[in-house]
Amino acid sequence: MRAPQSELYRPVELTFSGTDVIPADRTPVTVHARHEASGAERAVPGFWDGGTTYRVRFAPDLEGEWSWTSESTDAALSGRSGTFEVVRGTDHGPVRVAHRFHFAHADGTPFRPVGATAYNWLHQDEPLFSSTVGAIAEAGFNKFRFMVFPQGGGYIEHLPTLMPFEKTDGRWDVTKPVPEFFQRLDRAVEVLGERGIQADVLIYNAYDRGQFGLNELTEEEDAIYLRYLVARLAAHPHVWWSLCNEFDQLERPDDRWDRTGELLAEIDPYDHLRSIHNWIELYDNNQPWVTHASIQNGAVTTDFGRANLYRDVYGKPVVLDEIKYEGDIPDRWGHLDAEQLVHQFWIATVAGTYASHGESFVTESGSLHMVEGGPLRGDSPARLAFLREILEEVDGAGLDPIDKWDDPAYVAGIPRRLYVQYLGASAPATWDFRLPIGFPGERPEPGDRFEVDVIDTWNMTVTPLGRTFTLDDVQRNDAYDRASAPVELPEGEALALRITRVGD
Amino acid sequence: MRAPQSELYRPVELTFSGTDVIPADRTPVTVHARHEASGAERAVPGFWDGGTTYRVRFAPDLEGEWSWTSESTDAALSGRSGTFEVVRGTDHGPVRVAHRFHFAHADGTPFRPVGATAYNWLHQDEPLFSSTVGAIAEAGFNKFRFMVFPQGGGYIEHLPTLMPFEKTDGRWDVTKPVPEFFQRLDRAVEVLGERGIQADVLIYNAYDRGQFGLNELTEEEDAIYLRYLVARLAAHPHVWWSLCNEFDQLERPDDRWDRTGELLAEIDPYDHLRSIHNWIELYDNNQPWVTHASIQNGAVTTDFGRANLYRDVYGKPVVLDEIKYEGDIPDRWGHLDAEQLVHQFWIATVAGTYASHGESFVTESGSLHMVEGGPLRGDSPARLAFLREILEEVDGAGLDPIDKWDDPAYVAGIPRRLYVQYLGASAPATWDFRLPIGFPGERPEPGDRFEVDVIDTWNMTVTPLGRTFTLDDVQRNDAYDRASAPVELPEGEALALRITRVGD
Repeated sequence: MRAPQSELYRPVELTFSGTDVIPADRTPVTVHARHEASGAERAVPGFWDGGTTYRVRFAPDLEGEWSWTSESTDAALSGRSGTFEVVRGTDHGPVRVAHRFHFAHADGTPFRPVGATAYNWLHQDEPLFSSTVGAIAEAGFNKFRFMVFPQGGGYIEHLPTLMPFEKTDGRWDVTKPVPEFFQRLDRAVEVLGERGIQADVLIYNAYDRGQFGLNELTEEEDAIYLRYLVARLAAHPHVWWSLCNEFDQLERPDDRWDRTGELLAEIDPYDHLRSIHNWIELYDNNQPWVTHASIQNGAVTTDFGRANLYRDVYGKPVVLDEIKYEGDIPDRWGHLDAEQLVHQFWIATVAGTYASHGESFVTESGSLHMVEGGPLRGDSPARLAFLREILEEVDGAGLDPIDKWDDPAYVAGIPRRLYVQYLGASAPATWDFRLPIGFPGERPEPGDRFEVDVIDTWNMTVTPLGRTFTLDDVQRNDAYDRASAPVELPEGEALALRITRVGD
Repeated sequence: MRAPQSELYRPVELTFSGTDVIPADRTPVTVHARHEASGAERAVPGFWDGGTTYRVRFAPDLEGEWSWTSESTDAALSGRSGTFEVVRGTDHGPVRVAHRFHFAHADGTPFRPVGATAYNWLHQDEPLFSSTVGAIAEAGFNKFRFMVFPQGGGYIEHLPTLMPFEKTDGRWDVTKPVPEFFQRLDRAVEVLGERGIQADVLIYNAYDRGQFGLNELTEEEDAIYLRYLVARLAAHPHVWWSLCNEFDQLERPDDRWDRTGELLAEIDPYDHLRSIHNWIELYDNNQPWVTHASIQNGAVTTDFGRANLYRDVYGKPVVLDEIKYEGDIPDRWGHLDAEQLVHQFWIATVAGTYASHGESFVTESGSLHMVEGGPLRGDSPARLAFLREILEEVDGAGLDPIDKWDDPAYVAGIPRRLYVQYLGASAPATWDFRLPIGFPGERPEPGDRFEVDVIDTWNMTVTPLGRTFTLDDVQRNDAYDRASAPVELPEGEALALRITRVGD
């Protein structure tokens, strides 16, 4: 009999019938999977899914034959076994850190995050729930931040009926997860995956504000929930973990977050990306459990020479998951115009960092898109999709500042191969060909030839200059084509230049 | 018999005659000191100082009667005892971190570092050696960075004859320190103290470049030297420790620095300030052993909104110990003009950080002041002394950005009490009274009254406006005196404003 076929990186779901209900503070069943050719072994925890149904989701990371056996204190769940054959499909696998400051899927395909945000999306009814995913997918976003626990406080116009746990003696009982809640979460993660969107799952919630009381779980209760969540979701290749949005709104010592992050790193069989997002106090993103710095600070994208500093201090990818929002509410975090937000994305880009989008126009319900989702009304998403296209065309891991602290032009790129210079929201009338030279990195040499595209970041055009520039003056920190005439530009437009080395 | 009197925080030196020479990989003698009134105990290691002479230097941190006994494996050094009486003198004690981002002496007196630099000063002959201290003291600097080990490489015009260790089989033998070398170091630290200058001692050296071979000590050898150095110098209240300047010029794994820093924190009986200074890769200054971030990155002081980011990520004082140098050499780190360097110091100041000065004019010998010392030739020191006076007048721990990320005017100060706004190298013709409001911090209220001084940072004048401003419009993030006429300024000058709340 031929073993069932599975796709590399895609979850295989194994379903078991147990004898009884096992509370969620115990791992009900563990599957030990073995890759026959290499002998690699994986231990994958399962979870209770209502009644006496238990499931284990396993996402194989190697092609070929796998065998598995189950282990449990419940004899009905233990000692089962099987095999399956894993073949390469179209999934690129989980996103990992690549080349220190960037991202790539497990199969090496670069991933350039251009994210969207609707924190309370999971807790909305249809058709809003589904239309939100459609809107962000069509807009071209490839990462989406949302919270598992419901949001309380301002701009919340819809309260969920489905909650994650049952209550025991009036208190949330994390040993009794509500299967319907988490099945809905499963589906939410799946629909994002179907649309090619990474699910940036916000595990805990600083916006409960006592309304639901899910912010009052103890550290031990948080850990039980975390294990359950990881057992359910981690097999999805497109999951990212974020412990909390604006974690420091909660009065909780940092070392509790440290331990929770370390636990997450320990229990996730797939080692998904892990972060935590700040309000006014930065988390210590140098902690080993943090894979990338997820930072709120819009100000670092309002001018050059700022966001790149976070790269230096963390030595990890920097994702600016909140640089203020396109919208029209009075709060200063919520009334950027589209031009400004797009400008800030480009500054983030040449700083060698990534940013996320959010929209804060008041919706029909009185909420905000960044809270509940819905159609996108702003003018920035189309420009951000265009930016994403430009990023996708980078033939390499990503853009890094070339001469990281001292380049007055803040050029990013790949030394000697590719340079991107953002000329700001209002470009000058002319530009003289110049490349920065940094250290470390390959140095350009006299005779190197380059072509230049003029990128209109707002009007979304890429215009090749149709000229070739040849370096004739290479200094310690700059290289020039002195013989070339200045490049004339459409003055006042929000332009970037893409400078690509060409063959001799 | 009356016990000898000693001054609070000042070293008491106890001298012992031993039987033999004890190599420096062992602590030859330890003094256990006990403060009679409180029962507080201190264990202080001693050191060999040539022949069979051993010394223990102890700096009492409490007033009143102390008793001590010595302990050693050498019977001649062990079992000695005595008492002394400690009275408060004029010394303010070691500098500590204060109010998270600032410094104060042990007795609470604020310390505002405005530092100078001559890395290879220790290895110069007279009269250069002494004249350097005179020059920086007269210029008004209050911290001085210099290296224990000699510098190799460019701009080194004088090679020392005195080296820190003897050699055994052609290799530096750290168990055999050269007393004359360290006696000279003692004296160097003492003369700085006599002139009111904190000694920022660079313990290891990334500039040896194989010339002396002191960069090739093993981690164990480094530790032996470190213990010896701490035993000799730590009783001086004005010592700061810096593991290395541009540590990442050495190809050495970060965890070796981690362990060395942790060892230093463990063995220093006085818990002096500890840092490590970067070249192009930042050290993880979030490590607990690091008391303050000592950072090289001049670019963060060339514009507003940058240096303050380091405060957020480290949550510690930030001292920008290298923001490039006033001088005239071709390297871009060494040809700032004085106006630019002073400008950068003011930007560092309103970022809530501190900076250090250095001068890179080529000296008569062909070296640089920042290497060998000597007279100061630049125009910045007088302006930095003026800045220091302004800082000394701050009635509080120090200046913090008021609305740390979002204030377009980058005002620093103490909420509701004091505000300092630097208007940049070229001030506008007029200024409208406005205060930022941040979070957390006390909010100003309508009716609050303020006076304004115009500070000319280059011409070194403080001019009271002679007007009182009264808040009549307090918004969420700004406060105004709308009724007031604009303040006329000497346009184009490098000005700052000091805005002080006055009584009703």
